[in-house]
Amino acid sequence: MNTDLETTLPLPTGDRDALRLRVQSQLDAKTKPLGALGRLESLTVQLAVALGTDQPALHAPQMVVFAADHGMAARGVSAYPAEVTRQMVLNFLAGGAAVSVLARQHGLALTVADCGVAAEFEPHPMLARLKVPGAERGTADASRGPAMSDTQCRTAIAQGRRLVAGLPGNVLLLGEMGIANTSAAALLMVRLTGEPLGACTGRGTGLDDAGLAAKRAVLAEALAANAQATHPLQALAALGGLEIATMVGAVQQAAASGRVVVVDGFITTAAVAVAAALQPAVLAHCVFAHCSQETGHSRWLKHLGVQALLDLDLRLGEGSGAALAWPLLESACRVLAEMASFASAGVSQRTS
Amino acid sequence: MNTDLETTLPLPTGDRDALRLRVQSQLDAKTKPLGALGRLESLTVQLAVALGTDQPALHAPQMVVFAADHGMAARGVSAYPAEVTRQMVLNFLAGGAAVSVLARQHGLALTVADCGVAAEFEPHPMLARLKVPGAERGTADASRGPAMSDTQCRTAIAQGRRLVAGLPGNVLLLGEMGIANTSAAALLMVRLTGEPLGACTGRGTGLDDAGLAAKRAVLAEALAANAQATHPLQALAALGGLEIATMVGAVQQAAASGRVVVVDGFITTAAVAVAAALQPAVLAHCVFAHCSQETGHSRWLKHLGVQALLDLDLRLGEGSGAALAWPLLESACRVLAEMASFASAGVSQRTS
Repeated sequence: MNTDLETTLPLPTGDRDALRLRVQSQLDAKTKPLGALGRLESLTVQLAVALGTDQPALHAPQMVVFAADHGMAARGVSAYPAEVTRQMVLNFLAGGAAVSVLARQHGLALTVADCGVAAEFEPHPMLARLKVPGAERGTADASRGPAMSDTQCRTAIAQGRRLVAGLPGNVLLLGEMGIANTSAAALLMVRLTGEPLGACTGRGTGLDDAGLAAKRAVLAEALAANAQATHPLQALAALGGLEIATMVGAVQQAAASGRVVVVDGFITTAAVAVAAALQPAVLAHCVFAHCSQETGHSRWLKHLGVQALLDLDLRLGEGSGAALAWPLLESACRVLAEMASFASAGVSQRTS
Repeated sequence: MNTDLETTLPLPTGDRDALRLRVQSQLDAKTKPLGALGRLESLTVQLAVALGTDQPALHAPQMVVFAADHGMAARGVSAYPAEVTRQMVLNFLAGGAAVSVLARQHGLALTVADCGVAAEFEPHPMLARLKVPGAERGTADASRGPAMSDTQCRTAIAQGRRLVAGLPGNVLLLGEMGIANTSAAALLMVRLTGEPLGACTGRGTGLDDAGLAAKRAVLAEALAANAQATHPLQALAALGGLEIATMVGAVQQAAASGRVVVVDGFITTAAVAVAAALQPAVLAHCVFAHCSQETGHSRWLKHLGVQALLDLDLRLGEGSGAALAWPLLESACRVLAEMASFASAGVSQRTS
């Protein structure tokens, strides 16, 4: 099923290793003790390798908020009503959401992708209409059967790829909006990692204890109703969401075109995890912006073998964590490009 | 000894509590689940209280790198030779150091304060000459007796206050440079917290195991040679450095004038800890940018009852961590100022 979806990464492994060593040795010559910039240095190296250059520079960063509705929302798995997805899309377009504010602060171009919101929006220069035939108003209820058909899922992925192919710049920042989408992400985490449901299911936008118990019961139904969906793409179709499937394609395209992907929280991690299950090399392109407060996120990051930059107890989504981490990526490039070396600045090397 | 150094904080406690509640309730009305911006929200509240306004806005941020030499450097407590202090000052002025690059990225005005570097620099628009009479080339060797006289220490503090009083803006970012100053900071940590020397002493710029053991032995001598220096100001004079003492005054003045102080790593924390020992209320003005990889820093932050924003294994100093965290402070102000409320955006509130 996934042959046409496999990504081709721009640099062969040997070239990547050589580039990694070259950039680290440039960093080691800068006027600072060896390794003193800690994880900022690893980030510099990662960006260089992802972009395939020893002079990494980020330009025209694109924040895309992938939005869709979820049939499962009708089962009361979220603290907020499903209409909030539509309302928040309008809030993104009007510039009033957290991600709007942070994108403005950092000069990130903001696109909202309607991957299946239960509404029809007026055309807007920031809005991309990526609705999927038969799922224009969102997914089916995954607790009763597959959320999407395989065809719908493939269409969403293809649209994600096309969207990113048409965007300028060399960085994609992932954001998402969809009432009930921590449920879809939790289901994907269970299926992809084998972790128990309890370890994957959190309070989302703020469920109380009773709400969380009810959410877990609904998610257990969804797992049972889609027991046969074990391949990552089958799981994505059966348990995922339209915004998650579209993001899978976006991540694939970004990696295949040698871009950097900035991953936000739990839901965007679900998309990256599916893309990585299909093609592990995409992970080299992904910078994990933050570890969310949502139950399961830190464990999922461990499963992926990655470490997030920030840990600020965020649990908003929208791409807000990706936007908050963005200046660190710029710093990582600038220290390499602009810092003096011991030789150029006439600074003495260590004595011991 | 410290009467004239006590700070007067602008807002009484009751007013601060009311302001804190008012700002949190403004945040709670924004289009996001309650508390979903995590520690960014606590930061917003802290900035509001520190600045004494429910519309916090940061302007003309001032990064000051306080530089000085340490007599103890002659005992080989650092991996780098003492001349690096002077060389790095020139690197700051030339724009090639990490803090230079990061300050440029974020539009932070950069001042280098010569608090006692073993050199005379040509006049430079970014350089403030804050040398202390009798300690123009740095402190005495603390392993043999007091690093500074009480008078020298008071002079350094007063100069730090005067420097900040003359700076524009409402934010001070603390940076420092001084070969051997993790030693001075470790000594202050021992004396102020009562923690054992081993828990306070780290590798600094990169000592190996033998170097670390030798450093600890020298620091034990310094503690013994200055056993009588128990009051925070006495400890500062006996064990500290000229750049640390000058920073103490800078922190006091910043707090007294209602500014925000962004604290960098282990050495700037030493200055804040002394200032807080004299007047605990200064802590309300201090944002701790990051938890350094230097042994002792995370424990010192716990002693102070604070949590740092970033944890990126940095151990460079210079103010580099403060500069990296800076955009988070701007974000904290912007979400309060610019995000829509549920009411203004027409977004539904939670249902459960």
